[in-house]
Amino acid sequence: MNKADIKKLLQRVKNKEIDIEAAMGAIGDLSYTEMGFAKIDNHREIRVGYPEVIYAEGKTVEEVKSIIEVMLTKDNNILATRANEKMYQAVKNICSEANYNPLGRTITIQKRKVPLTESYIAIVAAGTSDLPVVEEAAETALILGNRIEKIVDVGVAGIHRLFDKMDIIRGAKVVIVIAGMEGALASVVGGMVDKPVIAVPTSVGYGASFGGLAALLSMLNSCASGVSVVNIDNGFGAAYTASIINKL
Amino acid sequence: MNKADIKKLLQRVKNKEIDIEAAMGAIGDLSYTEMGFAKIDNHREIRVGYPEVIYAEGKTVEEVKSIIEVMLTKDNNILATRANEKMYQAVKNICSEANYNPLGRTITIQKRKVPLTESYIAIVAAGTSDLPVVEEAAETALILGNRIEKIVDVGVAGIHRLFDKMDIIRGAKVVIVIAGMEGALASVVGGMVDKPVIAVPTSVGYGASFGGLAALLSMLNSCASGVSVVNIDNGFGAAYTASIINKL
Amino acid sequence: MNKADIKKLLQRVKNKEIDIEAAMGAIGDLSYTEMGFAKIDNHREIRVGYPEVIYAEGKTVEEVKSIIEVMLTKDNNILATRANEKMYQAVKNICSEANYNPLGRTITIQKRKVPLTESYIAIVAAGTSDLPVVEEAAETALILGNRIEKIVDVGVAGIHRLFDKMDIIRGAKVVIVIAGMEGALASVVGGMVDKPVIAVPTSVGYGASFGGLAALLSMLNSCASGVSVVNIDNGFGAAYTASIINKL
Amino acid sequence: MNKADIKKLLQRVKNKEIDIEAAMGAIGDLSYTEMGFAKIDNHREIRVGYPEVIYAEGKTVEEVKSIIEVMLTKDNNILATRANEKMYQAVKNICSEANYNPLGRTITIQKRKVPLTESYIAIVAAGTSDLPVVEEAAETALILGNRIEKIVDVGVAGIHRLFDKMDIIRGAKVVIVIAGMEGALASVVGGMVDKPVIAVPTSVGYGASFGGLAALLSMLNSCASGVSVVNIDNGFGAAYTASIINKL
Amino acid sequence: MNKADIKKLLQRVKNKEIDIEAAMGAIGDLSYTEMGFAKIDNHREIRVGYPEVIYAEGKTVEEVKSIIEVMLTKDNNILATRANEKMYQAVKNICSEANYNPLGRTITIQKRKVPLTESYIAIVAAGTSDLPVVEEAAETALILGNRIEKIVDVGVAGIHRLFDKMDIIRGAKVVIVIAGMEGALASVVGGMVDKPVIAVPTSVGYGASFGGLAALLSMLNSCASGVSVVNIDNGFGAAYTASIINKL
Amino acid sequence: MNKADIKKLLQRVKNKEIDIEAAMGAIGDLSYTEMGFAKIDNHREIRVGYPEVIYAEGKTVEEVKSIIEVMLTKDNNILATRANEKMYQAVKNICSEANYNPLGRTITIQKRKVPLTESYIAIVAAGTSDLPVVEEAAETALILGNRIEKIVDVGVAGIHRLFDKMDIIRGAKVVIVIAGMEGALASVVGGMVDKPVIAVPTSVGYGASFGGLAALLSMLNSCASGVSVVNIDNGFGAAYTASIINKL
Amino acid sequence: MNKADIKKLLQRVKNKEIDIEAAMGAIGDLSYTEMGFAKIDNHREIRVGYPEVIYAEGKTVEEVKSIIEVMLTKDNNILATRANEKMYQAVKNICSEANYNPLGRTITIQKRKVPLTESYIAIVAAGTSDLPVVEEAAETALILGNRIEKIVDVGVAGIHRLFDKMDIIRGAKVVIVIAGMEGALASVVGGMVDKPVIAVPTSVGYGASFGGLAALLSMLNSCASGVSVVNIDNGFGAAYTASIINKL
Amino acid sequence: MNKADIKKLLQRVKNKEIDIEAAMGAIGDLSYTEMGFAKIDNHREIRVGYPEVIYAEGKTVEEVKSIIEVMLTKDNNILATRANEKMYQAVKNICSEANYNPLGRTITIQKRKVPLTESYIAIVAAGTSDLPVVEEAAETALILGNRIEKIVDVGVAGIHRLFDKMDIIRGAKVVIVIAGMEGALASVVGGMVDKPVIAVPTSVGYGASFGGLAALLSMLNSCASGVSVVNIDNGFGAAYTASIINKL
Repeated sequence: MNKADIKKLLQRVKNKEIDIEAAMGAIGDLSYTEMGFAKIDNHREIRVGYPEVIYAEGKTVEEVKSIIEVMLTKDNNILATRANEKMYQAVKNICSEANYNPLGRTITIQKRKVPLTESYIAIVAAGTSDLPVVEEAAETALILGNRIEKIVDVGVAGIHRLFDKMDIIRGAKVVIVIAGMEGALASVVGGMVDKPVIAVPTSVGYGASFGGLAALLSMLNSCASGVSVVNIDNGFGAAYTASIINKL
Repeated sequence: MNKADIKKLLQRVKNKEIDIEAAMGAIGDLSYTEMGFAKIDNHREIRVGYPEVIYAEGKTVEEVKSIIEVMLTKDNNILATRANEKMYQAVKNICSEANYNPLGRTITIQKRKVPLTESYIAIVAAGTSDLPVVEEAAETALILGNRIEKIVDVGVAGIHRLFDKMDIIRGAKVVIVIAGMEGALASVVGGMVDKPVIAVPTSVGYGASFGGLAALLSMLNSCASGVSVVNIDNGFGAAYTASIINKL
Repeated sequence: MNKADIKKLLQRVKNKEIDIEAAMGAIGDLSYTEMGFAKIDNHREIRVGYPEVIYAEGKTVEEVKSIIEVMLTKDNNILATRANEKMYQAVKNICSEANYNPLGRTITIQKRKVPLTESYIAIVAAGTSDLPVVEEAAETALILGNRIEKIVDVGVAGIHRLFDKMDIIRGAKVVIVIAGMEGALASVVGGMVDKPVIAVPTSVGYGASFGGLAALLSMLNSCASGVSVVNIDNGFGAAYTASIINKL
Repeated sequence: MNKADIKKLLQRVKNKEIDIEAAMGAIGDLSYTEMGFAKIDNHREIRVGYPEVIYAEGKTVEEVKSIIEVMLTKDNNILATRANEKMYQAVKNICSEANYNPLGRTITIQKRKVPLTESYIAIVAAGTSDLPVVEEAAETALILGNRIEKIVDVGVAGIHRLFDKMDIIRGAKVVIVIAGMEGALASVVGGMVDKPVIAVPTSVGYGASFGGLAALLSMLNSCASGVSVVNIDNGFGAAYTASIINKL
Repeated sequence: MNKADIKKLLQRVKNKEIDIEAAMGAIGDLSYTEMGFAKIDNHREIRVGYPEVIYAEGKTVEEVKSIIEVMLTKDNNILATRANEKMYQAVKNICSEANYNPLGRTITIQKRKVPLTESYIAIVAAGTSDLPVVEEAAETALILGNRIEKIVDVGVAGIHRLFDKMDIIRGAKVVIVIAGMEGALASVVGGMVDKPVIAVPTSVGYGASFGGLAALLSMLNSCASGVSVVNIDNGFGAAYTASIINKL
Repeated sequence: MNKADIKKLLQRVKNKEIDIEAAMGAIGDLSYTEMGFAKIDNHREIRVGYPEVIYAEGKTVEEVKSIIEVMLTKDNNILATRANEKMYQAVKNICSEANYNPLGRTITIQKRKVPLTESYIAIVAAGTSDLPVVEEAAETALILGNRIEKIVDVGVAGIHRLFDKMDIIRGAKVVIVIAGMEGALASVVGGMVDKPVIAVPTSVGYGASFGGLAALLSMLNSCASGVSVVNIDNGFGAAYTASIINKL
Repeated sequence: MNKADIKKLLQRVKNKEIDIEAAMGAIGDLSYTEMGFAKIDNHREIRVGYPEVIYAEGKTVEEVKSIIEVMLTKDNNILATRANEKMYQAVKNICSEANYNPLGRTITIQKRKVPLTESYIAIVAAGTSDLPVVEEAAETALILGNRIEKIVDVGVAGIHRLFDKMDIIRGAKVVIVIAGMEGALASVVGGMVDKPVIAVPTSVGYGASFGGLAALLSMLNSCASGVSVVNIDNGFGAAYTASIINKL
Repeated sequence: MNKADIKKLLQRVKNKEIDIEAAMGAIGDLSYTEMGFAKIDNHREIRVGYPEVIYAEGKTVEEVKSIIEVMLTKDNNILATRANEKMYQAVKNICSEANYNPLGRTITIQKRKVPLTESYIAIVAAGTSDLPVVEEAAETALILGNRIEKIVDVGVAGIHRLFDKMDIIRGAKVVIVIAGMEGALASVVGGMVDKPVIAVPTSVGYGASFGGLAALLSMLNSCASGVSVVNIDNGFGAAYTASIINKL
């Protein structure tokens, strides 16, 4: 509720078109659903195709089911990330259209068809071990209504594999680069495209990768301009940001 | 040089419109200027208003001057970041239009007027101590041809100052959030706008801020979607990325 | 045993009202119960409602049961934190009034009704994943005799949910803020209340949250005054400190 | 501005006792002074004795002077922390009552006499090298109107020095413990008093103290209950929190 | 084999009391038993009561059994640390005198009675959770022939429990202090005795204890002189060093 | 494809010995096999004895089997590292010559006999707990066609065991040193040989070894010249590098 | 004051040989000199040759002088560590016997001749850059009355230099090993002597030595038994501990 | 001195061709020059062109001069690294052939011409800020008698600059890759050559580069095989290792 809204509201109070309690409710802006253990946030403008999102990690199967149950009463698409098989079974019981991506660990429910964007998001990944993050990003981008192109296993150790796909990458409106180990792919791609690059370090690696820290630091220090970074393994966050940019 | 280019080139070789040495040169793509101690990269498509950029830190005054001297032979605008007063004086001697922003430590040379974009980049900063990073971002955004709005000293300790400026922030096409200490501003802004937010942690703080690490981790873990992060104090990188997005 | 006590004791020795061995015992102050593998600390003044506390992590079921068995011989309430289901079953066998909070992992035994304070402690938490810490804090505060108000799932990504509850938070005598990920909630609340804020970082998060380190650093660097911090996931410690303050 | 205020305001608008622009201003709550490079926060209820606070680190002498110049137009006491000698000289020129504590690096201006509290804050420090933090805490507590007791050089290496002062420490309403190196003093004091203890790790030490990290971790892991922690060297923050508690 | 030995050996060679091959063997000093996957080190002077030591962690049950089998052919006592129940069963099968301490995870085989020292090692521990390390240290000290005194659960949160045992601690020739969490006990004890103190940080704790790092740093930064530190949870190392000192 | 190749290719195009599509294919250099979820890299010159390598960690059994199935269509030897028993069984089903080293966790398939080099690689390890890394290095070196010498359990705590083997170590063309804990062996060996030493820190240790970090830092800071380091537990990488050097 | 003392004291009170105030004073045990900014600790039994110690770092010249001035009123030797040239000049003015070791940064005042021990402490150092720590340790050991032997520049990169001095090292009663970089010397020496080894990591090194962290971790993880560690660069602490052991 | 040598020596003793004292001297192998504060290590076989090396950091000007003075008495070339201008002036005074590389901070004295190898070491660097490390590596490689090729400013942000030089890089016998920031160059080069790659992370960068840590971790986690790593900024170490390999 911004200044202009308040002004209009006050005008309506003055004109006695609305009574005080109602005005207070409007200002209070009851923009979430109280569930006791959670508050479902409804505050973003509900545009066609924007899903409701649940971060399932650390929630019980029962909690995830209950939250989705409430969400189903509205006409929105639904995305749950970091969900396990059991959560999916519980959700499937109350909504047969639910889909599960076991690699990306996402539950998606598409209640309304979302028209895909013409421009696309390129999702570029270094190795096959990065696929879970690729899938989380892909599912997120799709349910948000974006056309995507996946280019996987193009790590810099065999850089000719990357170059062969460079045209597809350069054709994207925004590029997500997913890589673990030393994360060099973000810099190489960042140096070759003039589109925003969102880098996702992954926890793929061992020893001195320190759970993705090496890739994270590498990406933050990228010598290529135009690269910004999200949290380790955060495929959802990268795709969400990419979607905002893709739809600008 | 992409596949289509190679195809055309090969066609011309076949047609003997171009001889082999010339074709080789084209493939070699001599897209930089060799200076012995440096190679000036010319490989990005030279669009109106795109400057040449020098990262001056760790270079000698003489090196900065020499690089700019070469750059001046072309008709591009020039930006040097992390430049000190002495570098500026040396550059001023060979180019009187050079400007210096002592807070942002940038040298800018505007050889051609760049028309500013209609949409703008909001540069939001938590405290007055973050101003050097704000200025680096602002100078970068401007010479890249972006309209900007600066909103400073709106840290979350006095959150009403931020809310009063929310309309300006929401009106931007892309938002840069600059904050040190605990970096909470990125999450708060990220939760209130539906535009891409590029977060810049700064080294402002002491003790357990560990030179910006606290703000960096905070921003990477932002519970708000749509937030991506660049290196500590990297105002240039944030503005460069924001400019790409702003011009999409 | 302070100076005044020693003075009185010496006076009694001089007056031969007490013999030397007894005086030595008094000075020695046998203020704990020796159990071989543990010494039960009895040294804090036993006020009505102050419970005996056991940190159960790293103890065997048998040890927890034995310690509680000894404690039950006194007329105090009992609190065990970080206790598991098995410990609870063992305790239940020797004391039927024992209660277990499976989320907060606390065993509580209320042997005497504790009158609750009039003023209350507000326990504010960012997300549903923080609930285990909320419950540990709540159980601790309650058995220590404090009225509490729980406000959960008000993280800064949807800050309007927080503002709607601001009156309740401002009405508290002391506020506990519990948050994982980037922990920004502590700064936002700290900037809006003029009561002491005790911040509890949680290990909720992944990747660069490094087991709660991001939230911890964020809270320690809070730009809001009046915020102090306890260990990661330390709901007990926060509630204990809050209780001391609430009862001042 | 809380719900009750909004209700009253809306009532007055309905009654046409206040016109719309004025009501908007009230809601907007212009609670800060815009200075271009800074916004002076006025939003906390201005009670007698509450000073305006400036964190001078990273600000120029000119900026500090300008901010204080504006503050002087109001009738409040003023505190600047992390201020250097030059800042003090500049402030002295515009306000002869300004005082400087060179060890604590604070500038204080007492425009109105503040009556001290009856209860006191004990400021306990391990060594003489911790004195700068002691002084920052002491100046803060004093200008906030608190009676204080300083007990310095009572580190645990000679624990009898501490015990001799235990009565004074136990007599306080709230205790600040300041220690570098291993920070053990916080645990020892925390185990002996039943008052809230605010621990301040200091950067005193070398080698594996890692700039105060050792003391910080030590204090966060204190086995004594009732201990909460602020940032390394943050004497101001500790005293500010202690003052809130002392005045409850 | 030192210089004097070589001199004697050369003299014997010259005198033809020993032939060249034998002399070479002597110089080569075949002071270990080759087992293919391991070399059993026999090189320390075999004094009465000195055991052979195996670090069982990361070895297979079979490997531990085989190594002990070889050791049994000599007349030494044997100590295996970090051994599990299964290893013990396997060893028990080949040597019925083997003993297992399940808390300390040690296997000991006493083939010859070792007379205990008159002076003793005090093993002081902060909490009951530190008992596994206490037991490893105790078993090590005992099989090395040292008299020991164990004083457990005397952490600084209830410091009077420690003081009550101070006479026993001060009576020791060398003191081992074992503590997790903030490790303050080492400094407090170190400040009260004039004997060498060997501090063992333990991994007891959670959150910001970072697996014992907090206690480790705390102990390394001890403000008390006379304190040296071994690795986290290294009860064996502390006892081994203490034994050397106790027998000086 | 280097400059000379391009020149020849262009010459052939000019001479119409090759048509444009074919030339394009040559330049595109389809040097990998697309498998959808992976791209098998064929780009290194296929010399006798060079195996195809799969990093099996984080891949499913099915994926490993499929990749090897494709590889088997070519006449190369195959090496899979970090492979588990199940992967081996799956591979065994499609190729009976497959061998598994359970300690080193390698699957090897030797389709053609590789003649071993005359010079050898010395693989020197500190303790028996380092054997898994030794085995990974050994299997890698062997299938790459190198003669090896293994010298294990020669840690610096019993340095005479090392010296006894010094002749074998000095006889190598390149030395791999594998050690956990404090990693001192790399410096000691590095100081005694004039051959390249490749140091492999292992995650063997506990407490302050921090998963191999202590050994890693130790080796990077080696005071001996001629020592370079690979990732923690990276036996494969060390052997691969050693093999390149051994065959120079 | 131990139990026996209290008993005797109480007996005297009972016998009226001492009045109550005096007894309280005795129990209070005013065992330090109050200086306002510092408390000089006198509580260790004053044996012949035990110096008073000042840690001068972070103290002003004036403070160091004042503390020494008070100390000079007693008949003890004095040691100030981490003292600079200016402090020395100030002390020299009030006490002409003061000596300064510019490398070790110690001020020593020997008011009484201390007879040296027969047994000696070996101080072994890896490189010439470690000399400042060597000197601090040496001055400390000497003024505490210990005979010492210095063996410097015997780092493991040229291990024969170490072996040549092994007899002297083995002849010591306790060994101090001082090393930066990878700190391997502690393990090598620890593996060759059967005396207690106190390891001092130094901040000598660069890059991944991280200010001595590499050497510290290396020493804590020493595979040799009998090694304990003090803080980085803590020559004083090592010598103090060594002196206690040497005099057992 | 190896086994064969000892055998021969013993034979000569037996034959009385050498007396005992002489034999002892031979075994003692006085292979260093004692200078009191340093021992000049002579123990590596003195081959033509092998220089004596001094690490000048942390040594005084006087010490560096003295060490070189002694070295000059032998007929070897000399290299001092991390030397400053003043050291050079002092050395110049005693040896006019001394040369100083101010960027690489090396002093070199070439007393005998060293014939360069036919094969060369490629020294590849990412940016101009890495030049000091390039120069240290180059000077080291040259005085060790290696032909070198320097390829600088070929960071991955403009990867075509690198590819243009690929032939030179591939022609080398061993490749040194020097890069700061994210260090991606090592992986890219490592993936394109089949020669040993020695990676040198540099401290070039800011913020989250943490003094070279980001590049170090990146290089250690390189997905390209054949890459090993030396310490941050360690140009000398890389060149020394490269030289050993180049001369195999």
